[in-house]
Amino acid sequence: MVIAIDAMGGDHGPKVTVPASIHFLKRFPDFHLILVGDASLLQEALQSKHYDHDRLTVLHASQQVLMDEAPATVLRTKKDSSMRVAINLVKEGKANACVSAGNTGALMATARFVLKTLPGIDRPAIISTFPTYQPDKNMRMLDLGANVDSPAATLLQFAVMGSVLASALDHLPHPSVYLLNIGEEEIKGNEQVKQTAALLSDLKLINYKGYIEGDAIYRGEADVIVCDGFVGNVALKASEGVANFIIKLLKESFSRNIFTKCVGLMVMPILRSLKKRIDPARFNGAVLIGLNGIVIKSHGGAKVPAFENAIQAAKRLVEENIADRIKQEVGRVLSQRALGDGSIEGNL
Amino acid sequence: MVIAIDAMGGDHGPKVTVPASIHFLKRFPDFHLILVGDASLLQEALQSKHYDHDRLTVLHASQQVLMDEAPATVLRTKKDSSMRVAINLVKEGKANACVSAGNTGALMATARFVLKTLPGIDRPAIISTFPTYQPDKNMRMLDLGANVDSPAATLLQFAVMGSVLASALDHLPHPSVYLLNIGEEEIKGNEQVKQTAALLSDLKLINYKGYIEGDAIYRGEADVIVCDGFVGNVALKASEGVANFIIKLLKESFSRNIFTKCVGLMVMPILRSLKKRIDPARFNGAVLIGLNGIVIKSHGGAKVPAFENAIQAAKRLVEENIADRIKQEVGRVLSQRALGDGSIEGNL
Repeated sequence: MVIAIDAMGGDHGPKVTVPASIHFLKRFPDFHLILVGDASLLQEALQSKHYDHDRLTVLHASQQVLMDEAPATVLRTKKDSSMRVAINLVKEGKANACVSAGNTGALMATARFVLKTLPGIDRPAIISTFPTYQPDKNMRMLDLGANVDSPAATLLQFAVMGSVLASALDHLPHPSVYLLNIGEEEIKGNEQVKQTAALLSDLKLINYKGYIEGDAIYRGEADVIVCDGFVGNVALKASEGVANFIIKLLKESFSRNIFTKCVGLMVMPILRSLKKRIDPARFNGAVLIGLNGIVIKSHGGAKVPAFENAIQAAKRLVEENIADRIKQEVGRVLSQRALGDGSIEGNL
Repeated sequence: MVIAIDAMGGDHGPKVTVPASIHFLKRFPDFHLILVGDASLLQEALQSKHYDHDRLTVLHASQQVLMDEAPATVLRTKKDSSMRVAINLVKEGKANACVSAGNTGALMATARFVLKTLPGIDRPAIISTFPTYQPDKNMRMLDLGANVDSPAATLLQFAVMGSVLASALDHLPHPSVYLLNIGEEEIKGNEQVKQTAALLSDLKLINYKGYIEGDAIYRGEADVIVCDGFVGNVALKASEGVANFIIKLLKESFSRNIFTKCVGLMVMPILRSLKKRIDPARFNGAVLIGLNGIVIKSHGGAKVPAFENAIQAAKRLVEENIADRIKQEVGRVLSQRALGDGSIEGNL
């Protein structure tokens, strides 16, 4: 099994992608990695490192996508970028998945252009994992910003894809799927949400449970939460904002004077275990879902352990054969909707 | 100056509203309060209390709005509710403002029905105050859930109202106004946001600064953030969810064993000072803005100090004569737009 790595992407480039890749290869002896990027830079970064040379290939790409380039410009002018070449490897069947920490908009546009969406899927979505109150339970939410103004039919596709992903990765027979709304009552919500609820209520193939509010994201009753990309992105960013705010206040509180600094030293291990529970690095590796192939987006600022987590996310999706499973399930939903059938059989 | 209190509203009713009112009266000798609700219950709650009888009136209302009643039902069947009677007092000029911790949807519907919107305002909005990294700087965001699917022209009105409120309450000559979006670049965003940005860029009367992302809500560069009520409500609730999650994890971390419990005792005062910075009670009292009169919504679960803060929010709006200032400013914007004038004069 082969994973292509956009080795030039992200804020740190090869400084992060190379050591993360080597560490990944040590832990997972069944995998082969292709590092795509400036060959001389990559060879230099690899020089002093110990790794299995049979399972790591360097593939040269002459260009690099910058973090602030417009997706349309990238599509037009960066045909030999490390990002594009890595995605091409998936398209050509030379890699089972690819991972990039590059510019999200450019990655989405390039992946969509090169790989195309699965049959029955209008738009790909970004899905990621969120921690919850329940230590061993994660929640998956989509779309986190790939699309805005998504019609109800698209949100329905997101629900199906999210359900398949949660089912495969968390081994849940019937993942609970909720729609993000501003109240739990029937009458609440905008037109988009109301129309999607009507479609989901008719669709017996997924375990649709109704509306859920923003404060429930972290409570853990939902396996999957579906929303428009605008709303999902705001919820994600607002969450990050609050977490950073509280952590900053905590640090300030403990650095106020000698006494608080001493207390702070004792508290460190406790805060560290807390941080581990909500550490974005642990949850790094969003999936661009709905494409003919697996593409993982790492956070741009990811350090080595976080980027390795993103490669591991790709590994799990490859092992669970996600792209094919979504294709099948979407096919079943489309035929169910065509036939007006409401059965809840099968492995969803 | 008179403030009407819906004394039956909220999860705790008179148990909270009565002591909060008495405490408020002690601190602010220029104010008179009218407690609206079940007169015998209220007299009983007041019986053993010391307060200035000349500045507290009880007004009987035979009904009570329940927390889960549909707004339409409330409008039709609860014409003598404590909520409706308190709003009527504002309408009749017998109170300068009213405060309720009741059902948000019912409060919004009743206030809109009784008071009507200001000339030039299509829909009222919910605006509230958020803490930021900068200790002495708050941020105000609207709409937090009064409206969904708001057209750009409505979001423009929200921007004007938010600017007037920030200007009056924080004494800022030109409050910075941002639009909540999923990226800071021009090309990002949904149709609603792009159209609103175009309108705001043309409007020189307010200090429009462009797009801002969800993680910036707590950073403090913005004085006012404008968004659709669906998005604002999700951002608010997701923020609450994260804050509760982290506080829960902190508590768990400190209660793990004897050692962590001892450390926890020492840390208590530090955590308490942190909690004070982000305490929702401090920021209690959202404003239903855009109506012919001042209506304050307290959190339903507010305890005594939080509810008193909501009454204080009403006090400040009365003192700053907010309803009239918004009316004037909206009038200026409407005439500017009609005339195509772009000057940034005046006291905004």
